[in-house]
Amino acid sequence: MATITAVDTVDIRFPTSRELDGSDAMNPDPDYSAAYVVLRTDDPAVPDGHGFTFTIGRGNDVVCAAIGALAPLVIGTDVGALCADLGEFGRRLTHDSQFRWLGPEKGVMHLAAAGILNAAWDLAGKCAGRPVWRLLAEMTPEQLVDLVDWRYLTDALTPAEALDLLRDKAPGRAERTAELLADGYPAYTTSPGWLGYSDDKVVRLAKQAVADGFGQIKLKVGADLDDDLRRFAAARAAVGPDLPIAVDANQRWDVPAAIEWMAALAPFKPYWIEEPTSPDDVLGHAAIRRAVAPTLVATGEHVHNRVMFKQLLQAQAVDIVQIDAARVGGVNENVAILLLAAKFGVPVCPHAGGVGLCELVRHLSMFDYVAVSGSLTGRVIEYVDHLHEHFVDPAVIDRGRYRAPDVPGFSTELKPESIARFGYPNGPAWR
Amino acid sequence: MATITAVDTVDIRFPTSRELDGSDAMNPDPDYSAAYVVLRTDDPAVPDGHGFTFTIGRGNDVVCAAIGALAPLVIGTDVGALCADLGEFGRRLTHDSQFRWLGPEKGVMHLAAAGILNAAWDLAGKCAGRPVWRLLAEMTPEQLVDLVDWRYLTDALTPAEALDLLRDKAPGRAERTAELLADGYPAYTTSPGWLGYSDDKVVRLAKQAVADGFGQIKLKVGADLDDDLRRFAAARAAVGPDLPIAVDANQRWDVPAAIEWMAALAPFKPYWIEEPTSPDDVLGHAAIRRAVAPTLVATGEHVHNRVMFKQLLQAQAVDIVQIDAARVGGVNENVAILLLAAKFGVPVCPHAGGVGLCELVRHLSMFDYVAVSGSLTGRVIEYVDHLHEHFVDPAVIDRGRYRAPDVPGFSTELKPESIARFGYPNGPAWR
Repeated sequence: MATITAVDTVDIRFPTSRELDGSDAMNPDPDYSAAYVVLRTDDPAVPDGHGFTFTIGRGNDVVCAAIGALAPLVIGTDVGALCADLGEFGRRLTHDSQFRWLGPEKGVMHLAAAGILNAAWDLAGKCAGRPVWRLLAEMTPEQLVDLVDWRYLTDALTPAEALDLLRDKAPGRAERTAELLADGYPAYTTSPGWLGYSDDKVVRLAKQAVADGFGQIKLKVGADLDDDLRRFAAARAAVGPDLPIAVDANQRWDVPAAIEWMAALAPFKPYWIEEPTSPDDVLGHAAIRRAVAPTLVATGEHVHNRVMFKQLLQAQAVDIVQIDAARVGGVNENVAILLLAAKFGVPVCPHAGGVGLCELVRHLSMFDYVAVSGSLTGRVIEYVDHLHEHFVDPAVIDRGRYRAPDVPGFSTELKPESIARFGYPNGPAWR
Repeated sequence: MATITAVDTVDIRFPTSRELDGSDAMNPDPDYSAAYVVLRTDDPAVPDGHGFTFTIGRGNDVVCAAIGALAPLVIGTDVGALCADLGEFGRRLTHDSQFRWLGPEKGVMHLAAAGILNAAWDLAGKCAGRPVWRLLAEMTPEQLVDLVDWRYLTDALTPAEALDLLRDKAPGRAERTAELLADGYPAYTTSPGWLGYSDDKVVRLAKQAVADGFGQIKLKVGADLDDDLRRFAAARAAVGPDLPIAVDANQRWDVPAAIEWMAALAPFKPYWIEEPTSPDDVLGHAAIRRAVAPTLVATGEHVHNRVMFKQLLQAQAVDIVQIDAARVGGVNENVAILLLAAKFGVPVCPHAGGVGLCELVRHLSMFDYVAVSGSLTGRVIEYVDHLHEHFVDPAVIDRGRYRAPDVPGFSTELKPESIARFGYPNGPAWR
């Protein structure tokens, strides 16, 4: 019998704004940060599970405070019971009626729940001796359905439909697992495209991306149209006429502006437009999608829960669902979103980058391939070459593909020396 | 030249769960709470502005932490500049790129911004020597349009359309102001309807509501259908066949369940169904509305920002817009929502109750009548008889109507003795 004895939080911030890494039209100077959680147990064999949610600096302390507020719901939990019913644990964190008033299921409290749930999955993976993608991929359809909070979903997808969908894909699981272990999962890279980079740097990094084997790149747009036209032309010339180049406006536009701006960029063949407007605007995305075809519409990194993803799919507002590992309610809610996307036949291409998102989303996409969608068509995981060196089990890219992780857990654990150095505001990196 | 010198926060909680006041199908035991803000100035004539956001207990401390995190954006602000451009002040609180990552414009950070903005409007009212509803009602159409953050709205409403709409209503302002000063604004009451009350108490309070002159009452539903049918029958018998009885499910149902449950309640003539499902589910509300007509659909107390209200209107998902004074970005964002509702011709009936919401929303509805909608048809402000005694300028009801407030400010100020007694966790009410 092991028990969770403590929920420790650490405010960790990396001073990425100093190099303009991660700069875009809405986020000119992010300091990539983690509201970091350690669930401590009294079991020396599996003493801790690590998790985090991702922020870009100011307010990371508020998320840490929210994790602390949720801690009484976690401390004292039996680890065996937790691992056996992670669905119950997820609902416990999001259904408390008083906390629920602060959302429901959005913003700081939901980010905090995500951080704790990610730590719980890390703990579950370590207890099972499995990386989380394999832990998930080995669950029965019934166990997977039980992970989901079905509230508010049943007009679009019922548990019975989800079971059918999962059973339908069960036969090929072993084969697809072997394929991932051998070949990995396709990636694209955003490294060339940050708005703060010079044209020369964009061109150099775009050529490097092709040389490194990436089959797609992404550029940030939306601050200045002339700049976007010039940068897009340079990148297109650098990579040739056929390589898909996605563009990402990071929510900069109103609906009419998005349509107008994308018409101007159309000659350069944008593959998808990501976050053209408010992440809350389901109907706006649908209107933009109708107007910008054949350019695809993608969103999700700021879509706050499964109810919003449900509507984006119901309204035919997106061509690409971009899950995020740390914004919605952890692995549990991402399982719900993967099931919804599969029902609607829309591919999932996760948002990554920041700190640690690459490490986490590879588990989710690999599980999706093995057990949910059973397809790689039109699917690609974002990759950004930032901050991986701080992780115990970092994402590894080989010829433009994510290698399958094999370390038990959720790859969420930061190295102790990184935790010490980038603790905010007292770590040496900030003093 | 006066300056804001400090942003003080107080975690104030009232132990309302002890009496089951406020109990409903999703919130069985709320402790009505205020994350309370005082903006201090160096001007002895107007030393402070008071504001708050409303929560129901746990997590109120997290909102106070968020207010503290936003304080550096506020301290040092020139009070004259603030009063002259409250639109800029609102955008400053919601556009900071790093904080924005935690929403955007939703959850804890947006609640915190609401609390600060409510305090800023209290300060502006005190500086002008006007209650906020009159301060607003005396602004020019141009000044009102400048209060709004237009980002993400222009596909539904442009600043130019809003100007036209406000200019169209300008001629009758003085007459409507005089009418409100004489007769007040119509109210309905939820006091009989809490789920934790016995049938006898429901009947007694329903009869009392009619005797007190209220033209509408509201019952909580959604936990148990047999209970709802019995309570609704008793309330209907108590008030007679014609008095509108609204029902409120507080987000309890999925879409199919909402439609089924409302079919069962239909014989008792529910006037509106409030919060039938997730506040995020625009398309779900639209489906429910099509199914339950002629019962009206109402929502808004948990709708997190103007982008969501825009879509509820665009999708014809609601018959009634229920603004909340403390969830969206303060007076500024509520002005945007009132303008959207006017454009779409949908009446606004504010959510109130809790602690202090009745005090605040009367200002917003009275401004709406004077300068925006120009109409009282189908419009009524919720009233709940809780906790008014703690306010310096409490809501006053006279024969089922809200009296017009005449004290300068936003009626946000709690009495010092209440602040001391209900401070959490160290006030005498909690020790």
